[in-house]
Amino acid sequence: MQKPLHFELEKQTTEGPSQARVGKITLRGHLNQNHEITTPMFMPVGTQGTVKALTPEDLENLGAQIILGNTYHLYLRPGHERVERLGMLHQFMNWKGPILSDSGAFQVFSLAGLNQIDDDGVTFKSHIDGSSHRFTPEHSMEVQRALGTDIVMAFDQCPPYPTTDEDLRKAMDRTHAWAKRGLQVELKPHQARFGIVQGGMVEGYRKESAEILSSMDFDGYAIGGLSIGEPVELLHEMTQITAPLLPQTKPRYLMGVGRPEDLIEGVRSGIDIFDCVMPTRNARNGQLFTSTGKINIKNAQYAEDQRPLDESCQCETCRNYTRAYLHHLFRAGEALSARLNSIHNLSFYISLMNKMRSAIVENRFESWRKSFYTLYHHDKKK
Amino acid sequence: MQKPLHFELEKQTTEGPSQARVGKITLRGHLNQNHEITTPMFMPVGTQGTVKALTPEDLENLGAQIILGNTYHLYLRPGHERVERLGMLHQFMNWKGPILSDSGAFQVFSLAGLNQIDDDGVTFKSHIDGSSHRFTPEHSMEVQRALGTDIVMAFDQCPPYPTTDEDLRKAMDRTHAWAKRGLQVELKPHQARFGIVQGGMVEGYRKESAEILSSMDFDGYAIGGLSIGEPVELLHEMTQITAPLLPQTKPRYLMGVGRPEDLIEGVRSGIDIFDCVMPTRNARNGQLFTSTGKINIKNAQYAEDQRPLDESCQCETCRNYTRAYLHHLFRAGEALSARLNSIHNLSFYISLMNKMRSAIVENRFESWRKSFYTLYHHDKKK
Repeated sequence: MQKPLHFELEKQTTEGPSQARVGKITLRGHLNQNHEITTPMFMPVGTQGTVKALTPEDLENLGAQIILGNTYHLYLRPGHERVERLGMLHQFMNWKGPILSDSGAFQVFSLAGLNQIDDDGVTFKSHIDGSSHRFTPEHSMEVQRALGTDIVMAFDQCPPYPTTDEDLRKAMDRTHAWAKRGLQVELKPHQARFGIVQGGMVEGYRKESAEILSSMDFDGYAIGGLSIGEPVELLHEMTQITAPLLPQTKPRYLMGVGRPEDLIEGVRSGIDIFDCVMPTRNARNGQLFTSTGKINIKNAQYAEDQRPLDESCQCETCRNYTRAYLHHLFRAGEALSARLNSIHNLSFYISLMNKMRSAIVENRFESWRKSFYTLYHHDKKK
Repeated sequence: MQKPLHFELEKQTTEGPSQARVGKITLRGHLNQNHEITTPMFMPVGTQGTVKALTPEDLENLGAQIILGNTYHLYLRPGHERVERLGMLHQFMNWKGPILSDSGAFQVFSLAGLNQIDDDGVTFKSHIDGSSHRFTPEHSMEVQRALGTDIVMAFDQCPPYPTTDEDLRKAMDRTHAWAKRGLQVELKPHQARFGIVQGGMVEGYRKESAEILSSMDFDGYAIGGLSIGEPVELLHEMTQITAPLLPQTKPRYLMGVGRPEDLIEGVRSGIDIFDCVMPTRNARNGQLFTSTGKINIKNAQYAEDQRPLDESCQCETCRNYTRAYLHHLFRAGEALSARLNSIHNLSFYISLMNKMRSAIVENRFESWRKSFYTLYHHDKKK
C-alpha cells in the first residue's frame, strides 16, 4: 500500500551557514484528494475545531495549506468518537484541507490539572469539569484515528525547562518507548505519522533521540521540548543542532514555534513545518505583526491613524480597514477586532513563509534574512 | 435643492384588514451615489461602528440594505468629531451602504447612569467611565451631522412603561418641542430627518403626536415608545392605530421592534422600516430563528444533529455548517459561534422582509402570514 505521505525535497540551500530547504509534501487525504503542501510552511492552530474567530473560507483565502487540531481539547469536547460519527474533523468543521493533530501530551502536561505520569501513560483531570481521564500512547493514537487527521503525532513526554538531567533522560527514554508502542496501533489508511525528538537542551540527548526515532518507521519528524521557557538563544541552538540529525528525505517540524524571528532561524536550520498560537493569540490581545515591527493597536497613537496596519500587506484587513478603526474595535471590546486582527497576523506569518520559500529558490535566503531584520527592527533604532 | 430622501409608495394592500405596503426609498448618499432601498425592510444594528462579529462584506452578502448606528455609543467612543475626521461613519467602518443613526435619546434614558432631564435637554453619565455629558435636541443633531449618517432621528423623550398620564403628556409635549428645535439645526446636504411619534399606550396622544409631527417638515416618521416592556398585544394595537395616522407618502419606521411576529404585524399595519438587536443579540446567546420556530443551539439534542439550522435557508451558515458544529462552537465559547449565528439570524430577518415584500406585491400577504405562523409554531403543536 502506498504511503499516506510523500515528501519531495526540491532544493537544499548550500549558501553559507544556511541549511534552508524547500519541498513539497503530498498527503493522500481522507477522500484520496491528494493534498499538496509547499514547504517551508506555517500551520494556523485550530484548538477546538476552529481557528479562533475565523471560518475555513477565511483560512483558504489566507493561503493556509494545513491547520492543526488539538487532540486534548477535541477528546474532551465534543469527544473524538462524536467527531468521528460526524464525519471526522474535516467534515465536522467544514475544512477541506489537511489537518495535523498533536498527540494531546503537551496539553495534558501543561493545561490539565493534577496529572500523574508513569511508564504506561498519564492520568489527568479535565480543565473543563475536573473529570479524570487517562492517555496512553495507544489511546492517543486511537483518539487521533477517530479524529481522522492527516498527520498524527506520537505521544511523547515533554519535561519542563529547566529540569534535572535524570528527569530529562527518563522523559526521553519514555518518549522513545511510547513512540514504538504508538506505531503498533493501526491508523486509517490516509493517516501519516510523525515521531517527536526530545532531549531538552542537551546536545548528546538530542543526537541519541534523533537516532533512535530515525530508526523507526515515521513519515516525518518533529522537534519537541523547545519554546517552553528557555532563552531564545538555546531554542535556536538546539534547533540548529537537531534539524540536521533528522532524515534528509522526510519533513521536519519544529513544534509550537514561534516568533517571526524564530521561524526564520528555524527555516535557516532546515525546518519545513511550524505551528504556533502566537499570531492568533497576539491578535486577540491587540499585538500585530508588520514588516516594520510589532504594533500594539490599543495604543493612543493609532486612534486617528488612517493607514492600514501594514502598507505592504494585501490581506483583507489591510485592504479594507484603517489602524484607527482597528484601534476603536479593540478598545470597544468588539468581536470583529479578534477576527480582523487574526486575519492580518496569520497573513503576515503565511506570507513570511512564502517569502522565505521564494528566497531559497532564488538563492538569496541569507540576504533576504538580513533585509527582513533590518526593516523589522527599523522602528526600534529610531 | 433636491430632498436627500425620496419615497415611492409602490403598492398599498387593499386585502382585508391588511395595510401592508411596498415602496422604494432613494437616499442621496454622502457621495451622491443614490442608495435605493426596497421596503418593507429590516436594519441590522451596528451599535459601536460594527454589527457585532460581522464585516461590512458579510452584511452585503446578507442583503442588508441599510444599517443602524447608535449616536450615544459613537459620541462616547470613539467620539463623533473623530468619526467625522476619519471620513464619517461610512468610511470609518468601511460600509458602503446607507446608515441611519438614532438620536441617542433612548440610550441616554436606558443605559447611561443618573440622567437628569429638563425642558432643555438631558444630563447623563457615561456607562463607560462615569464622566458627565449633556445632550440637547440641537446637540444630538450636531453629533449626527458629524457622524454623517444618511437618516438622522429627532431627539425625543421616551417615557418608561407603565407611567402616569401626567408624565406621558409631559414627555410627548417635550418630544414635539424638541423635534421643532432639532429642525432648526442645519445638517449635511445628504442627510434626511425623521420625526418620532410618542404618546405611550394612549390612542388620543398617539393621534395628537402624529398630527403635530406631520405638520413639521420631516422626510419620514418613526413610532417610538413601543417595545419597552408593554404586553405584545398593546405593541400591536398601538402600531395598528398609529401607522395610518402618519403621512401616506413618507416612510414609516417602527423603532426597536422586534420578534419575527412583531415585524409581520408591523408590516400588516403599514410599517416600512424596522430595527432590532434581537437577531444579533439572540445569536450570541445561542437562540436561533428558523422557519419552523426558534432553536436553542446549546441544547443537548443538537449535539449530533447533522442538519443545517434551517433546511430552507441559503445563508453562509446553513450552507456550510451543521447544527452539531454550531452546538459545539457555542458550548466551547468560540468566537466563531457569534459570527455564524449572527449571519443566520440576520439572514432569517432579511429574508422574512423579502418574503413579505413578494407576498404584498403578489396580493397574497394574508395567506402568506397564516402559512408563516402555522409553520413557525409547528413544533409547539407536536
